[in-house]
This record gives sequence, structure tokens and C-alpha cells, in this order.
Amino acid sequence: MLGLPAAAAVAASATPPAGAQTTGDPLPSWNEGQAKRAILSFVRVATDPASPQFVRNEDRIATFDQDGTLWVEHPVYAQVVFALDRVVALAPEHPQWKNVEPFKTVLSGNQGRIAALSLKDLETILAATHTGMTEEDFQAIAAAWIAKARNARWDRPYTGLVYQPMLEAMQYLRLAGFKTYIVTGGGQAFVRAYAAQTYGVAPEQVIGSAIKTKYAYDKNGRAVLIREPSLLLNNNLSGKAEDIYLFLGRRPHAAFGNSSGDRQMLEYTQGNGGARLMMLVLHDDAEREYAYGPARGLPDTKIGTFPQSLYDEALSRSWNVISMKNDWKTLFKAAD
Amino acid sequence: MLGLPAAAAVAASATPPAGAQTTGDPLPSWNEGQAKRAILSFVRVATDPASPQFVRNEDRIATFDQDGTLWVEHPVYAQVVFALDRVVALAPEHPQWKNVEPFKTVLSGNQGRIAALSLKDLETILAATHTGMTEEDFQAIAAAWIAKARNARWDRPYTGLVYQPMLEAMQYLRLAGFKTYIVTGGGQAFVRAYAAQTYGVAPEQVIGSAIKTKYAYDKNGRAVLIREPSLLLNNNLSGKAEDIYLFLGRRPHAAFGNSSGDRQMLEYTQGNGGARLMMLVLHDDAEREYAYGPARGLPDTKIGTFPQSLYDEALSRSWNVISMKNDWKTLFKAAD
Repeated sequence: MLGLPAAAAVAASATPPAGAQTTGDPLPSWNEGQAKRAILSFVRVATDPASPQFVRNEDRIATFDQDGTLWVEHPVYAQVVFALDRVVALAPEHPQWKNVEPFKTVLSGNQGRIAALSLKDLETILAATHTGMTEEDFQAIAAAWIAKARNARWDRPYTGLVYQPMLEAMQYLRLAGFKTYIVTGGGQAFVRAYAAQTYGVAPEQVIGSAIKTKYAYDKNGRAVLIREPSLLLNNNLSGKAEDIYLFLGRRPHAAFGNSSGDRQMLEYTQGNGGARLMMLVLHDDAEREYAYGPARGLPDTKIGTFPQSLYDEALSRSWNVISMKNDWKTLFKAAD
Repeated sequence: MLGLPAAAAVAASATPPAGAQTTGDPLPSWNEGQAKRAILSFVRVATDPASPQFVRNEDRIATFDQDGTLWVEHPVYAQVVFALDRVVALAPEHPQWKNVEPFKTVLSGNQGRIAALSLKDLETILAATHTGMTEEDFQAIAAAWIAKARNARWDRPYTGLVYQPMLEAMQYLRLAGFKTYIVTGGGQAFVRAYAAQTYGVAPEQVIGSAIKTKYAYDKNGRAVLIREPSLLLNNNLSGKAEDIYLFLGRRPHAAFGNSSGDRQMLEYTQGNGGARLMMLVLHDDAEREYAYGPARGLPDTKIGTFPQSLYDEALSRSWNVISMKNDWKTLFKAAD
């Protein structure tokens, strides 16, 4: 049973699946307006060989932040829910956790105290739940979790809380020859576990925060990589630009984000020649999703902060701000 | 004028360009033998949906070491020649170099003393010639160098010293749906400057040793990345397996190397399920190129070492050793 209001459910199921629209409106879940026009205009200019802003096929790269840009990030990142669930699942193997913080708080189930855990506590929890196993074991654990975990507010899988308008934008760009990359502050291995199925984005097109791995042999002499509690790439802020260069060796022509963590990715994209598209999702839709900024007087939450300074930079650099409330006709993809 | 013996030049020009062979022998520069059969058999099994070793299209990944596997690495890596040439080019801006080692030795032009430079000297030279500029300036410098530098023995551009049999193997694998990656101990940014033109490999499919970059703004407020003298990825030995996982999130099904630096890449590839192909080029052709090991009693040189222990591991793990002398009919690609 879905928790969606009936009207929203009807609207969602009336939306054609991404990829189906080969004629007609490629962005049916977008209301007419500046944001939609910006995407259509960008693709037209970038793919027109007669345009001075034409982009060669091999340079057509578009990058997308994930949390808050492609799917819901409030009230807590899905990956943090995953880590907390893993503490509960692993607790029988670690009886001492009942008496040791921050595990004690997690196991108490007290949502208020869990929400108050510090960043350092979270790092301890991430190290305990995300490292020590082979890379393939971790992938299987993450894939199994994402297949069955459900978001409480909507009673849907997290992968059901992806934004239909963004799926349409990704697909539209792919049909125009763009390679779509996810560039996330989240864990690269975690996101890769579901990105192909959820977004149509292959593992090698997910760039995320990454830890070191250690080469080893299992008991059968097979080479394995063990996940180590040591950060290799912090893919946030300027790290996003640096890691895009590390992975791709050049600048994107389109970039989508929603918070100050995406600022440098958009600036780096704008530094390219030819057609360019820089877009930021503003969560101003308290009814259908959440409203937070604090740009434009929206509430100041702690996740996915969109400060007024970022809004001002968007205006001064001619970036496009997407109003979730006004620009998106349908919010979530239709239920599977 | 080419330095190739007449017979070799005729053989080279008689070779059809890679990609032209849609019928007939896809590997015309390979002599009949175990190595050639191994490649043909691998592709047949990997792409046969009825085979228990069938590899899905999205998992078709093949990785290639560069130096000594795709092009000549003796008597000195092309990238080191580049760095030495850069010292000469930059010397007018650094008058003090005339009196400071290791620059003084480089500027002396004394080949014997240059060849005797230590690894630490080379690191000093690499830092002085490879860092401090933007990533785009470095790419332009590297591209300009590779376009005009010539190898002394053959009087050909370095990009003319790529092995025609390997170009055919790459193209054959691509036609079978494999994505071909270069996985090099060399500098990622250096190799990316010519990989697309030379090998048909896009920048994002070059994984190499990489330094950190620093996000900054130029005087016009444009975002740039400055190359820093700090190693981020040492893409050699176990680093090759670790970085393949970092970039791709999964194991290759085929891997080609030629030295102990490629050992872990081949082991990691063999750890995959389905069809797998692990190959090592043995440089046993003193007449047409160079002969070095020290496996099988070949001379022990310091670059691209192929020790007997690697040869023994290849036999015990059923890897394929390519004899340059016996397996390759044509050595170099035809002159442009």
C-alpha cells in the first residue's frame, strides 16, 4: 500500500516512463517556465552543429548531485539510515556495543537522541558499518538493504523517492548524446549498488566520496580488496570539481545540484567553453516534500543547506534555480 | 624518413588499419599460435549467450597497461623524456638550475649522467615540470610535446611506436562490446593528452597515477584546478587493482600487462566470474625491439621488469604469455 495521496498517485501513474517519450514533450513532469526552457534551450544549442556553442559528442558530459537533487534527502540521508540499520543488524556480533557510545544510543531506538548524534559519532558508526569487509561483500550488503528499506513518511522504498522531473532531464540529456554522471558527497560504493537500476547510471559513472581499499588474498588465494577506515576522496565542495577532473579529465557542460556542497561543481562547469547549463533545485515545497534554504527566507535546516549567498551567486552567474513547488508538476516517479 | 628496415616498413603498410576488418581475420598482425587463439576463444565464449561463461554487455571491461604493453618503454619512458625536455624548455625561467642538481645534470646533456639519475632526482624533476600550472595548461603542454617529440632509434613520433597487434586486440574487443581502459603507472593527465587519438581511448577511460589538484579562481573569477606536488594515486602494483575498483566499481574480464607492476591487475581480473583473459607481453625480440626479463634468462634491465616469479605465476594461473618475437607478425602500426 502506498502512502501517497490519491491525487498524487493518479498524477504519478499518468506520467509516461522515462525513455518512452521519443516525440512530443521530453519533459512532461516540468511545468512551463524558465527552468524547463533552460534545459530545452541548452540541448538545442549544444547539439546544433551550426551553433557557435556546439558541443562535440565526446565532450557531452552532465553531472548530477544525488541527495536533494535526484532524491529526497530529508529528514536524514538514506545512507545514514543504512548505517544505523547496520548497527542494529551487527549488534549480536558486538555485545559490547550495548554499553559503548555511540552504538548504545543507536540501539536504544530513541529517535531524538539518535538525531542529536554528532558528526564524529556518525564517523564512528560509518567506520564500524562500512569497512573491514571486501568490496564485493559491501556491495551485496548495500544492495540487499536498498531493496527492502522503506521511507517512513511515504512508506515507499528510498529508490521510489527519486524525482520524476530529474529522471526525465537525465534521459533527455542521454538521448542528446550526453553521458550522465552522479557526483555525490555520499559513499561511492553505496550509491553504485543501486544507481544502474534506479537512475540508469553505470557504476563507472558514479563519482562519490571514497575510502581506501587494501589489496589482499582470501583463503583460496583469490585477490580481494578490503575496505579500510581511511578517507581517500571527500567528494563535496571543491572535492566535486577535483574528483570530476580526476575521473573525467575535463569539465562537464551541464551540472545539477541543490546545496552549497555543489557550488564548486557548478562553477567548474561554467568555466567550460561552448554551451553550459548550471541548475540548482530549491526545496520550497513544504506540502509535497520539504521546504528549506535558508535562501529566500526558507527554514534553515542542517541537511542540504542552500544559503542566501548561493542564491545570490546563482543570480549573478546566470545559473537557473528550479523551484520544486512551481517548476515540477509531478514530484516522484510512479510506483513500480 | 622512417628508420624502419624496408621489409618491416612494407609489412607495416600492408596491415589494414584497425577497425577496417569487419570480416576475415580480426587479428592480422598476430601469428597463429596459443596467444592469438586465447584472444579469439575468450571473445567467443564471453559473447555467446549460451555459454556458462557469458559476460553481460555492461560488464565487458578490458584493461591495458601502457608502457611496454601498448608502446615501447625502452630505454626510457616517454614521460621521462617529456620531463627532461621540459627542464630544458623551462631553464630560461629558472637561471639557478644551472647550478642546482638534478637540473644541472639534465641541462648538461650528458646522457650517461642523465641515465644515472636516481628515483629521487626524477621525482624532483617531475614536481618541477608537472605541477604548479592549471590542469588545462598542463594538458596543452603535454599535447604539444607528444605532437613533435621523436624517438631517436626509430626517428618516429612516440605515438608511432604503439604495437599494431595490441591496437587490433583493443579494436576487436571493442567490436565485441568491451570498454577498453588504459591502466598505467604513468601520469594520468599525461596519457590522457594523447590516448584518444592514439588508442581510441577517451580520457575517462584512462586510469593512471595522479596528483592532487587544488581548486582556485583565476584573475577573471573562473574556476581552475592547480596541479599540486602531492601524490594521490600511485597506480602501480596493488594500486592498479585498487584504482580499477575506485574508477569502475567492479573487476575487468580481460587484462593485458608486461611487468611485475601488472601482477595484481591480472590477479584481480582472474578473481572475476565468467570468461576471463589474462595476458603478459614478454619482450624477447632484441632484433625488432628489445629483449628483457629477467624471466627465461633474458637480460635484466631496470624498466618493465618481467621476473621469473611472474613467469612462473603466469604458468601456474594459466595466464597467457605473448612472445613478441613469435606471436607478433607486425610490430608497429603503419606510419601515418
